[in-house]
Amino acid sequence: MKIDENENTKIKIIPLGGLEQIGMNITVFEYEDSIIVVDCGLSFPDDDMLGIDLVIPDITYLKENASKVKGYIITHGHEDHIGALPYVLKEVNAPIYATKLTLGIIEGKLKEHGIEKLVKKKTVKHGQSINLGCFRIEFIKVNHSIADAAGLAIFTPAGVIVHTGDFKIDYTPVFGDTTDLTRFGELGKKGVLALMADSTNVIKPGFTSSERTVGKTIDHIFAENTTRRIIIATFASNVDRVQQIINSANKYGRKVVIEGRSMVNIINTARELEYLKVPENTIIDIEEMKNYTDSQLVLITTGSQGESMAALSRMAASLHKKVTIKPSDTVVFSSSPIPGNEKAVSKVINELSMQGANVIFQDTHVSGHACQEEIKLIYSLVKPKYAVPLHGEYRHLKTHAELAEAMGVDKDNIFILSSGDVLELSSKEGYVNDRVQVGSILVDGLGVGDVGNIVLRDRQNLAENGIIIVVMTFEKYSNQLLSGPDIVSRGFVYVREAENLLEDARNIVNDAVIDCIEKNIADWGKIKMIVKETLSDYLWKKIKRNPMILPIIMEVE
Amino acid sequence: MKIDENENTKIKIIPLGGLEQIGMNITVFEYEDSIIVVDCGLSFPDDDMLGIDLVIPDITYLKENASKVKGYIITHGHEDHIGALPYVLKEVNAPIYATKLTLGIIEGKLKEHGIEKLVKKKTVKHGQSINLGCFRIEFIKVNHSIADAAGLAIFTPAGVIVHTGDFKIDYTPVFGDTTDLTRFGELGKKGVLALMADSTNVIKPGFTSSERTVGKTIDHIFAENTTRRIIIATFASNVDRVQQIINSANKYGRKVVIEGRSMVNIINTARELEYLKVPENTIIDIEEMKNYTDSQLVLITTGSQGESMAALSRMAASLHKKVTIKPSDTVVFSSSPIPGNEKAVSKVINELSMQGANVIFQDTHVSGHACQEEIKLIYSLVKPKYAVPLHGEYRHLKTHAELAEAMGVDKDNIFILSSGDVLELSSKEGYVNDRVQVGSILVDGLGVGDVGNIVLRDRQNLAENGIIIVVMTFEKYSNQLLSGPDIVSRGFVYVREAENLLEDARNIVNDAVIDCIEKNIADWGKIKMIVKETLSDYLWKKIKRNPMILPIIMEVE
Repeated sequence: MKIDENENTKIKIIPLGGLEQIGMNITVFEYEDSIIVVDCGLSFPDDDMLGIDLVIPDITYLKENASKVKGYIITHGHEDHIGALPYVLKEVNAPIYATKLTLGIIEGKLKEHGIEKLVKKKTVKHGQSINLGCFRIEFIKVNHSIADAAGLAIFTPAGVIVHTGDFKIDYTPVFGDTTDLTRFGELGKKGVLALMADSTNVIKPGFTSSERTVGKTIDHIFAENTTRRIIIATFASNVDRVQQIINSANKYGRKVVIEGRSMVNIINTARELEYLKVPENTIIDIEEMKNYTDSQLVLITTGSQGESMAALSRMAASLHKKVTIKPSDTVVFSSSPIPGNEKAVSKVINELSMQGANVIFQDTHVSGHACQEEIKLIYSLVKPKYAVPLHGEYRHLKTHAELAEAMGVDKDNIFILSSGDVLELSSKEGYVNDRVQVGSILVDGLGVGDVGNIVLRDRQNLAENGIIIVVMTFEKYSNQLLSGPDIVSRGFVYVREAENLLEDARNIVNDAVIDCIEKNIADWGKIKMIVKETLSDYLWKKIKRNPMILPIIMEVE
Repeated sequence: MKIDENENTKIKIIPLGGLEQIGMNITVFEYEDSIIVVDCGLSFPDDDMLGIDLVIPDITYLKENASKVKGYIITHGHEDHIGALPYVLKEVNAPIYATKLTLGIIEGKLKEHGIEKLVKKKTVKHGQSINLGCFRIEFIKVNHSIADAAGLAIFTPAGVIVHTGDFKIDYTPVFGDTTDLTRFGELGKKGVLALMADSTNVIKPGFTSSERTVGKTIDHIFAENTTRRIIIATFASNVDRVQQIINSANKYGRKVVIEGRSMVNIINTARELEYLKVPENTIIDIEEMKNYTDSQLVLITTGSQGESMAALSRMAASLHKKVTIKPSDTVVFSSSPIPGNEKAVSKVINELSMQGANVIFQDTHVSGHACQEEIKLIYSLVKPKYAVPLHGEYRHLKTHAELAEAMGVDKDNIFILSSGDVLELSSKEGYVNDRVQVGSILVDGLGVGDVGNIVLRDRQNLAENGIIIVVMTFEKYSNQLLSGPDIVSRGFVYVREAENLLEDARNIVNDAVIDCIEKNIADWGKIKMIVKETLSDYLWKKIKRNPMILPIIMEVE
């Protein structure tokens, strides 16, 4: 590792995603011939990305600099930090460095994509460092809503960059230690070039509560519902939450059933790696439920966000093959709805209530992200020269910038970046005067990047208004109409109730086509255009709707 | 009016909408040959109702009993209580009874639909009663987020039914009096058969704050932003909120610009009817803005829910012709996002922040609905024999039922109804043992009810996966393929990048069709089915997608 801290030595920081949006966290650190990539996440599609399964970052810049890429450093095992790895590694293969649980979760993902053998992986413990090219990267213990999360101290030739990852400060964590405040303080004392800290909760004043407060609530629910079956939905990756439910189950003599594919996967991984302590004979198979009474059972399930295919949603809609909701059930949402999911969650709560279940959804969750006072605490320890707010929409980054300024960072030294900005930092100065290609690659089924704006616009139009197809067959050389125009519609009107409308439409199109023929228009493109305009005008006047109109001309020789 | 309170006299209460959902409030009260209809609202489309503009109730029951319908009683001027009137009145015309502002807003709606002359309207004051068939209906003052809201005492042959409408209790209202607690108490003292009360906020403990608390916050924002232009987005119908903004504007010497069509309409109506007091020379036209400095202006605008076409959203997206957002703007969201709108609101906040505006969205709104303690207060005054929770999803109704029981209503006398249930109440007993037809009629453009489940399912499929059309021309009698099969797709893949896929698809379809011809299959339906299955299998195997496949066969004689 080269340390060359003269005041003109510059390090480049290039976020390829994760700014101005939630999710898709991926940041490049570059010095001469060395690149390291911190996190490699996906994001979930916006409402207008119809039919899209997930979104991954455009990594053209990494492909162009593939020979420089020394490795991927992953801070924790959430999808928005690891989800793009299988796609990105297929393009730019390099070793992955992460803590044990994070790597365990990543391995499961790589297996699903059949590439686990092609990628090198190295477990790093909190407190350990690794050397990659010009960089030394130290992993620092932080608390988050998934176990084994890490912050990073990235030692670069231009100085030390502290990257918090996603974090909170939990003085009474369920597993392991509190965020390593001492280490942040030591780094601060020696001098830190830049702090890149989590902005997710920066709009919220105060402190985020300890995960243990949820454990108390859960315990209380067990105490109050001794005769009822208890079903708890939470995030599969929140291993500490699952641990606390298992603890309560054990205390109250209940067997635990795990339901939902991602819940089963992560709990298996966490047990194998000993991040979850389960007393013997506690977890039973769902098939064994029938051998126990309500008061002897607790189900831990996916579906806390109202996802339509998740286990709890299927139970609520009476579509689950093995669990039927009944009035003697108490169902707990140990989660809060992620923005955009509120209505889906309400729907599931209503369905559960209609089946008579007692539904609890208040005070049963804490966030995994630091609020204002925690972020301030980190600033007060790290005392960075530069602040580069991480993770969040613009309004979060802006509020974070104000907080950094209030914490004494010089206003000119705070950078609200956009994805693609090339930030160059030296101990002397910092500026953005270059950009690299970034963007969102849409994944639909097995297709990566084959659905773009044109396709999405078509889907939007089809969704709102449906489609009308006008087909006709012409003789190739004589300009003679052999068949049609016929009209077929989908998603437009209920055909049986709109026979007159469609018949009128056909007549109007027919007249327009006959008119073209009489005028000797032989340009199929022109005929199509006339058909489209004529029909579009008619429908707008008649019912104020704007379906996609697709004229097709077949030629017969 | 006939009062015949023997213990077997039964009154029918039939909600045609508004239960198990938010919006579309409409309830029938029926006794022998008399029907009155309380409220007549619309609801906004669910996320899966693609392309639908609004949803109105199925009023088959009213049409079948049109001769009995004596009138529509409207509690207040919100869309979920008045929005279906223009559609319903075209089917079942009867006089409308409402307070002055409510009727003013309704008149605007009827004008838009060109039916204002066809409908009788009568203004009723708080405290006044009207007689309709067997019923006497008294209007009672209640507070809500729109001025002139009313609760009702419906005197029926079976006893008195108290209907709160949407309400809260505001001890310091901006306009008019506090909810008429005394009248509720008097009715209770004389004996009330049933209480139908607002359930919207029943999950929230405590009391809803006074509208005046928002006035104080707004005043404070004016005091702190003396040099900046202030833009405030709120609900057009919240006349009291607008009044408070105008009061602050006046106090701080600012001119007021009103922007957004619905805001202009309602403010005009409210001014004409003197529900809004605007000092002379306070409101200016948007064109006059240029004559004033930032510190002399406040804009009141629509768009507080992030609606994409509303004025504030257009400003944020730099699409507004007359207002450009600048760093010296302070933008206030005097609203909270309605469930489902959170992401849209965030988007607008981000866009405004990116343009440098200071955005305020916390503590700038209060609800218009009663929380638990207010609802309890009403129960304690009205002391009903029966409780029929109103307005809300099932989980709200269920929580309301628990509250009613805690307030002393006999458990068997609490009815959680579904829309369509016929509740029969006498002083002796209450039960549901009949149902009438109810449902949601979808309005798309000028089409009312011509988009149903089949069309929506097609739209959903088109939205997720797009469409592939396979066209071929056959000779009618010879079974000879004259042209095609050709493949056209929309919303499926970006054609230029998927030429190979589409070419392969065409070849596979072609082989399938040739195979049909060689096997002498002359049934077009069968050929279409084979094309569909062949192509569908191929695409699922190849890219795990499921577009709508539409084979079209043209015949040439």
